[in-house]
Amino acid sequence: MSEKAPWITYRPELKVLDCTVRDGGLINAHRFSDDFVRAVYDACIAAGIDYMEIGYKNSKKTFPVERFGPWRHCDEADLQRVVGDHDAEATGLKLAAMADAGKSDWQTDIVPATESPLSVIRVAFYAHQVSEAVDMMRHAAELGYETTANLMAVSNITDVEIDTVLEAVADSPASTMVIVDSFGHLYREQVDRLYRTYAAALAGTGKEVGIHAHNNLQLAFANTIEAIILGCNRVDATMFGFGRGAGNCHTELLLGFLRNPKFDVRPIIEVIQHHILPLRQEIEWGPLLPYNITGQLNQHPRAAIEWREGPTPDDFLAFYDKVVSEI
Amino acid sequence: MSEKAPWITYRPELKVLDCTVRDGGLINAHRFSDDFVRAVYDACIAAGIDYMEIGYKNSKKTFPVERFGPWRHCDEADLQRVVGDHDAEATGLKLAAMADAGKSDWQTDIVPATESPLSVIRVAFYAHQVSEAVDMMRHAAELGYETTANLMAVSNITDVEIDTVLEAVADSPASTMVIVDSFGHLYREQVDRLYRTYAAALAGTGKEVGIHAHNNLQLAFANTIEAIILGCNRVDATMFGFGRGAGNCHTELLLGFLRNPKFDVRPIIEVIQHHILPLRQEIEWGPLLPYNITGQLNQHPRAAIEWREGPTPDDFLAFYDKVVSEI
Repeated sequence: MSEKAPWITYRPELKVLDCTVRDGGLINAHRFSDDFVRAVYDACIAAGIDYMEIGYKNSKKTFPVERFGPWRHCDEADLQRVVGDHDAEATGLKLAAMADAGKSDWQTDIVPATESPLSVIRVAFYAHQVSEAVDMMRHAAELGYETTANLMAVSNITDVEIDTVLEAVADSPASTMVIVDSFGHLYREQVDRLYRTYAAALAGTGKEVGIHAHNNLQLAFANTIEAIILGCNRVDATMFGFGRGAGNCHTELLLGFLRNPKFDVRPIIEVIQHHILPLRQEIEWGPLLPYNITGQLNQHPRAAIEWREGPTPDDFLAFYDKVVSEI
Repeated sequence: MSEKAPWITYRPELKVLDCTVRDGGLINAHRFSDDFVRAVYDACIAAGIDYMEIGYKNSKKTFPVERFGPWRHCDEADLQRVVGDHDAEATGLKLAAMADAGKSDWQTDIVPATESPLSVIRVAFYAHQVSEAVDMMRHAAELGYETTANLMAVSNITDVEIDTVLEAVADSPASTMVIVDSFGHLYREQVDRLYRTYAAALAGTGKEVGIHAHNNLQLAFANTIEAIILGCNRVDATMFGFGRGAGNCHTELLLGFLRNPKFDVRPIIEVIQHHILPLRQEIEWGPLLPYNITGQLNQHPRAAIEWREGPTPDDFLAFYDKVVSEI
């Protein structure tokens, strides 16, 4: 890679994960049509995306099928119906599902990898759940999956908690530890600090560092670029930034930035045009001012989401006064 | 300033310029009501903003008064009507106007600084206009103004052109040389490179480096942060990102990031609430997908603006195909 103008060259080992269906589904309880999921899947293959996260492997007790669509659970029958006999090698696309510590019946719901189109289980957890998370990764790894460790809400915990999690992950089968900015709070210097901490703790293990950014401060794409510059080789994005609240790093921006000629942004724009833009008629996401405020305050975007669903969604000043008065 | 967590400390010498009226006026030919301009002015003072750019000092021949509002020309009578006997010292706010090389009757239209509420003339120019720009800055400096050199469209010229401009500016009375990303094309590493080039060329002159970012790639705020981290002490922003095409770095995000206690974001949110949001009913701006495309291609956003005013503004795929087929 050129040192002179690194932004026009590329690292072949950098892999993109599109989590449009998994992360975006948090807005609509994962009630997507099969056509929608298939369109995203086809676009991922056509665009040269490396991983597609197609949903959650979460519990039907916590998320009953009456209220949540199939991509909250990723039953093998649902996967089979939409992606058929998915061939990761032939398509160049690996399918992933996320399992949340504390919300997944992972002991019973994950079948051996050879019986599933999925090849990756990403384990999402809060710091205090790290022991279950490591158990989940061990279990999934024994079943033949690649696994990743996604420590959520990292902007809200202490350095010593992060260090303890990293020690546990270093000894786990995880291929990747992901910097997850759940609240969209991180600035560039904080991303740097976290990247260096993660990379130092995992040095010698062969594990990669990933990034999953949220767009509360209009920094999801920028923070993803920053992590890439530092050496991050696993990056998450969603098409048109589709995702709860402020949304995510945009897949189409990311592919436009990456110079690996295997990537093609046109299929992404096509699926945005035909499948994502229509969703905007009924669903809102993006870095609106209330999300700017919760992001800068290092708060969960919950209050902003509720405000946008309330009686005066456009009264940003009242939202600001409410939030500031409560801290 | 702390080296450990520099994002929670501040540099007192860092100054913010709000160019909502000047840059935003490019959308509506500077036809703002006096109330609007006064509201922005009051908010700048209340928020602790250092400079407010209130419009252009441009030619009435090029921009006839029948078609352009008063803030394209900043006649002293118009300034007087809105800001009265503005007192820069008492308010902490300096007023600036921009003059474009090639489009300004600067020899006749700029009155002595002692007779105007303006204290800064920012000179905008393309590389080939640098000689006129230096003449303009000399003239304005002789009249008692602080001046700045704003080399536009820097992503579209060669390193040797940049070096030549910097040599000329180093010998000029300009207080500041601004990195102007007119096409919203720059990535973080390019901002770094330009900052270092500008700072090296101006070393020892006492001049500051500024940044004026556009949001085509959702990177205006991020690139502004980057420039600040590197040492940039003059930063431009507009309220709610108001500006032509993809818009600008958002003043409210920037003030939320800066830790100088003199800044207060609430007056900015207030003016957004009461004066900027109503404009959105009739005017569009922001980092829409067509601007992503022109930004990544290092093109003027003109084609994207025209597309959004055409018969199929939401057909992003057709816009992509059109633009790609034409390069």
